[in-house]
Amino acid sequence: MQETRLDTARIRAARRVIDPVFLGTPLYRCEALEPGLGCAVSIKLETANPVRSFKGRGTEVVASLLAEQGPRDVVCASAGNLGQALAWSGRGRGLDVTVVASRFATSAKLDRIRALGARLELVDGDHELARERAAAIARYDGIRLVEDSLDIETCEGAATIGLELVEALEQAEQAEQAGTGPPFDTVLIALGGGALATGVGHVLKALAPDVEVICVQPLGAPAMTHSWRGRRVVTTDSTDTIADGVAGRRPIPAVLDDLLLVADDAVLVQEASIIAGMRMLLDHAGLVVEPSAALGIAAILEDRDRFAGRHVVTIVCGSNVDVDAYQRWVGAAPLPHRA
Amino acid sequence: MQETRLDTARIRAARRVIDPVFLGTPLYRCEALEPGLGCAVSIKLETANPVRSFKGRGTEVVASLLAEQGPRDVVCASAGNLGQALAWSGRGRGLDVTVVASRFATSAKLDRIRALGARLELVDGDHELARERAAAIARYDGIRLVEDSLDIETCEGAATIGLELVEALEQAEQAEQAGTGPPFDTVLIALGGGALATGVGHVLKALAPDVEVICVQPLGAPAMTHSWRGRRVVTTDSTDTIADGVAGRRPIPAVLDDLLLVADDAVLVQEASIIAGMRMLLDHAGLVVEPSAALGIAAILEDRDRFAGRHVVTIVCGSNVDVDAYQRWVGAAPLPHRA
Repeated sequence: MQETRLDTARIRAARRVIDPVFLGTPLYRCEALEPGLGCAVSIKLETANPVRSFKGRGTEVVASLLAEQGPRDVVCASAGNLGQALAWSGRGRGLDVTVVASRFATSAKLDRIRALGARLELVDGDHELARERAAAIARYDGIRLVEDSLDIETCEGAATIGLELVEALEQAEQAEQAGTGPPFDTVLIALGGGALATGVGHVLKALAPDVEVICVQPLGAPAMTHSWRGRRVVTTDSTDTIADGVAGRRPIPAVLDDLLLVADDAVLVQEASIIAGMRMLLDHAGLVVEPSAALGIAAILEDRDRFAGRHVVTIVCGSNVDVDAYQRWVGAAPLPHRA
Repeated sequence: MQETRLDTARIRAARRVIDPVFLGTPLYRCEALEPGLGCAVSIKLETANPVRSFKGRGTEVVASLLAEQGPRDVVCASAGNLGQALAWSGRGRGLDVTVVASRFATSAKLDRIRALGARLELVDGDHELARERAAAIARYDGIRLVEDSLDIETCEGAATIGLELVEALEQAEQAEQAGTGPPFDTVLIALGGGALATGVGHVLKALAPDVEVICVQPLGAPAMTHSWRGRRVVTTDSTDTIADGVAGRRPIPAVLDDLLLVADDAVLVQEASIIAGMRMLLDHAGLVVEPSAALGIAAILEDRDRFAGRHVVTIVCGSNVDVDAYQRWVGAAPLPHRA
């Protein structure tokens, strides 16, 4: 294939600098979900770690490079998961981390960023304004700006998920009892800035090109999907989705170029389907997930015919939710006040 | 130490016959829980697998031995998790599995046992009656009875969790950044029949004897704890707890003998603490857990002074809940009807 900015050898090397707590995450068939979806479903679970999202894979690469040679101060914009992960990775390596976020971001994410010792600056606008502010801080203070999806470490860190998926395919091929293994044929990936999609997509296209790579984005935040379809950057004026982790408006050209090389499709899903996906993951898989992590299930719900008979992996990429909002989404009344 | 029935070399060998989907489970620090508990807390997560509990580790050992040499028919009594795991392990190896359970068992567990193709027989009584009925079936039909906690495979399968905990200790000792690793000093283990406690306890006492092994049982099902304290089998006439996975009344003498060798303590907790533990794991760790899996958190809540300043591992051993009951426990109104 034509070459992305990513490098498979560097991705393999990244695993040696990422704290093992983020690696070798569970991949397992979830049959209880299947009657409701009409296809075989396996879950790649990226939430059972100290920051409850896949972002630690990338920030570990960023922070280990900075700790070796770079500046000790670093700033990023974040909807919350990147900031939390960078705060975690930076704390362990003595970095001084600043996170810029929208004041409308998920409270639980902001609370964790503060608790991990990062400096948190809130902007009175959406994630794109936070990106601008983080870039301004980096320029003004002369410190390192970590740009999610643009900085290759964030993509190559996420890409280590792809290595684990390919290894599962190889093990299933070798196993005698292949019937119980995960010989999946499709991977559904939440699409936001593109680090996860280009990372995992790069590895799959390089090492397991028969696996279909499908990106999923909310109809209410469709900029990257429109860009992928049009093969040129398309921006939007606003976003309207509960999937805060993927609610961007201004795709990065270099990331789009990579995505054009590795994604087989990009689909948009409705908010009701995202909520239904969250409910299904709670009821049938016992998983609390944030909206972005239910995009894959939402895609199946909206196009059962397409997936019928297939074996799909959906990457459950984050579980950082505000409990009250979560309970509202999954249909329960608000919880009573608790400590 | 004096010798249990378990054998560390056999436990190491067990890992080679257990499907990898049950092994190498996440172990991670969960700082968001800590302000509410007053100690460092790490989670060993045994729910991210096809049966949502640790029981697959044991049934994989049982089923692989049967597939090699034993009878192809097997029966067990189960509160639901063992039966589900045996059904899963047996299906993959062509075994004919019968599960006997109380008709009052958690519906979600019974549904999954059926869905996995096992024959399910319900008895009009509690788990002890199911044990009697399973034994009768085994005698009458001349088939293999799997007795949880008595059969050494169930203990040694569970004991592989202990190997993983010890390896984490060794890695933390080797790592330069030991501050971020999990150098825990205490392990909290749900106590029911005793397979998990004797299994994990055996490995810890053999390989990491300084780690304190604390078993936790509900006040409403205290038979094994009373037996441990009295150093002789004590039975109870009934149980009264939501923690269905550990609600036994008649401890097995050989299992008690092992437990006396490996447990440093056995404590009893109130139902309100179990529910508070489930809430904390939902709110601060994003984990849906069944009551048995919240026993460790409950023990900390009831004796903060004891654990202050320590680093505790709690084994989150299962997540199979009836969604309506779970929502009731964690304080939300019942969910609306859903497909």
